[in-house]
Amino acid sequence: MKAFYKKLSISEKIVTKMMEAACRKAEELGIKINVAITDDGGNLKGFMRMDDAPLLSVEISQNKAYTAAAFGIATSEWYPMIKDEPELLYGIVHTDRLTIFGGGIPIVIDGQLAGGIGVSGGTAEQDALCAESALNVVKQNL
Amino acid sequence: MKAFYKKLSISEKIVTKMMEAACRKAEELGIKINVAITDDGGNLKGFMRMDDAPLLSVEISQNKAYTAAAFGIATSEWYPMIKDEPELLYGIVHTDRLTIFGGGIPIVIDGQLAGGIGVSGGTAEQDALCAESALNVVKQNL
Amino acid sequence: MKAFYKKLSISEKIVTKMMEAACRKAEELGIKINVAITDDGGNLKGFMRMDDAPLLSVEISQNKAYTAAAFGIATSEWYPMIKDEPELLYGIVHTDRLTIFGGGIPIVIDGQLAGGIGVSGGTAEQDALCAESALNVVKQNL
Amino acid sequence: MKAFYKKLSISEKIVTKMMEAACRKAEELGIKINVAITDDGGNLKGFMRMDDAPLLSVEISQNKAYTAAAFGIATSEWYPMIKDEPELLYGIVHTDRLTIFGGGIPIVIDGQLAGGIGVSGGTAEQDALCAESALNVVKQNL
Repeated sequence: MKAFYKKLSISEKIVTKMMEAACRKAEELGIKINVAITDDGGNLKGFMRMDDAPLLSVEISQNKAYTAAAFGIATSEWYPMIKDEPELLYGIVHTDRLTIFGGGIPIVIDGQLAGGIGVSGGTAEQDALCAESALNVVKQNL
Repeated sequence: MKAFYKKLSISEKIVTKMMEAACRKAEELGIKINVAITDDGGNLKGFMRMDDAPLLSVEISQNKAYTAAAFGIATSEWYPMIKDEPELLYGIVHTDRLTIFGGGIPIVIDGQLAGGIGVSGGTAEQDALCAESALNVVKQNL
Repeated sequence: MKAFYKKLSISEKIVTKMMEAACRKAEELGIKINVAITDDGGNLKGFMRMDDAPLLSVEISQNKAYTAAAFGIATSEWYPMIKDEPELLYGIVHTDRLTIFGGGIPIVIDGQLAGGIGVSGGTAEQDALCAESALNVVKQNL
Repeated sequence: MKAFYKKLSISEKIVTKMMEAACRKAEELGIKINVAITDDGGNLKGFMRMDDAPLLSVEISQNKAYTAAAFGIATSEWYPMIKDEPELLYGIVHTDRLTIFGGGIPIVIDGQLAGGIGVSGGTAEQDALCAESALNVVKQNL
């Protein structure tokens, strides 16, 4: 019997680079974003708000990152999954912090869930592009 | 590299006059309102409840002002923006304090977001008229 | 009458460098910290948790940064200020987010309160040293 | 048998003048305050934050006004009342919004509790002086 198992978690160094990549992508797109990154435990690991980025997104970006880390799928996958099940569509959306629109993506390393990233400030599609830019940094550093 | 950037924020003096203008407009319309004003950081700067104005609107007016300051658009613009995107319609409305009906308007000075005003007590249209009366005071004092 | 007044707020670029400086100081001291930075409105601007830094400090660091920005004095100044006034010692400590131990310092630029930094993970003294390292970055970039 | 009783409640007009009086007193004292006024139901009736007044006091001033209206005594009377009763000193202070230090005063008209005022930003004594300036406006308008 094994008393433990090993986990992977994103590191401080890569988080700094991920947030930088997301913000530079946002500049390219002409938007101002908040970006949040949680670790494998769903706890905030890094956060950055661009100058004049919307305050409302301070919370939304963190909830997206949490949702991604806490369920292991992109936040954009939630709506298609629940739309034909009214008990979920009207019910599960009340779960604290659960976010069902795009911009949150899990951080997966070697098949293991190592954290989540959430971006808010543009459209869901723009937010997701910024998040993907950040995830590319992870891929380049494995 | 610049360590800071400059912001504008509404002043106490104008806030007093804004709330007065909103309440007088409400009298004209025959309604009783709550009016809340937040600064550029979304923090409450001023608040006034007319005699016999609905208690429920104490919170609603503050949430409208916060939403306007925190996202930089009128609260009346939210529903048209999200109505055809079900993941937002069922999802983003759960964001704490987010208000998606009229009566909240950002305070913009020289192109910069300097605060928000929220009015509650009448219909969304009446509330917005009161908020606009208050914003006229800002324009007359630049 | 003036409808607005001007404020200064810390920029995204300097926030990235401030968090980096705080974390490197923590390494020197042999501790693992969470560092949070709020803007002049008390809203989260940046956050970083070092690998294996205590989870409890995720919230504490943010509350320290908020307290510093929201009252304009270092969090270490609170206890000496209230210790001989029992109504504050037993009363004001219940204020939401108020933190009365060291590690939170206001960010003051040209005499104006432009934000707050909060560090948590070591002793109050160690946390304050990390915060001061971050503030030195601000001074070097004015 | 009488199916109802009459209550008194502060009016919008006097609230505007009360907040103005409190802020001007604060200027005299060289402090920057938040002032909150609740009606006889403990609900927010008016609020004003002077430019650059501490954000932390946004909540404290409202809690002082609520406490004053909700128990009918000045907040400065709470500590002397509970200090020798440890179950209250350690227990009742956890009551949501209860504030046990000076700066909150009930508004009493013709022997009836008609609301509360709370001031925060200076010392408890300075805050109370500002609140009393506001209450003088009530007396002059009976």
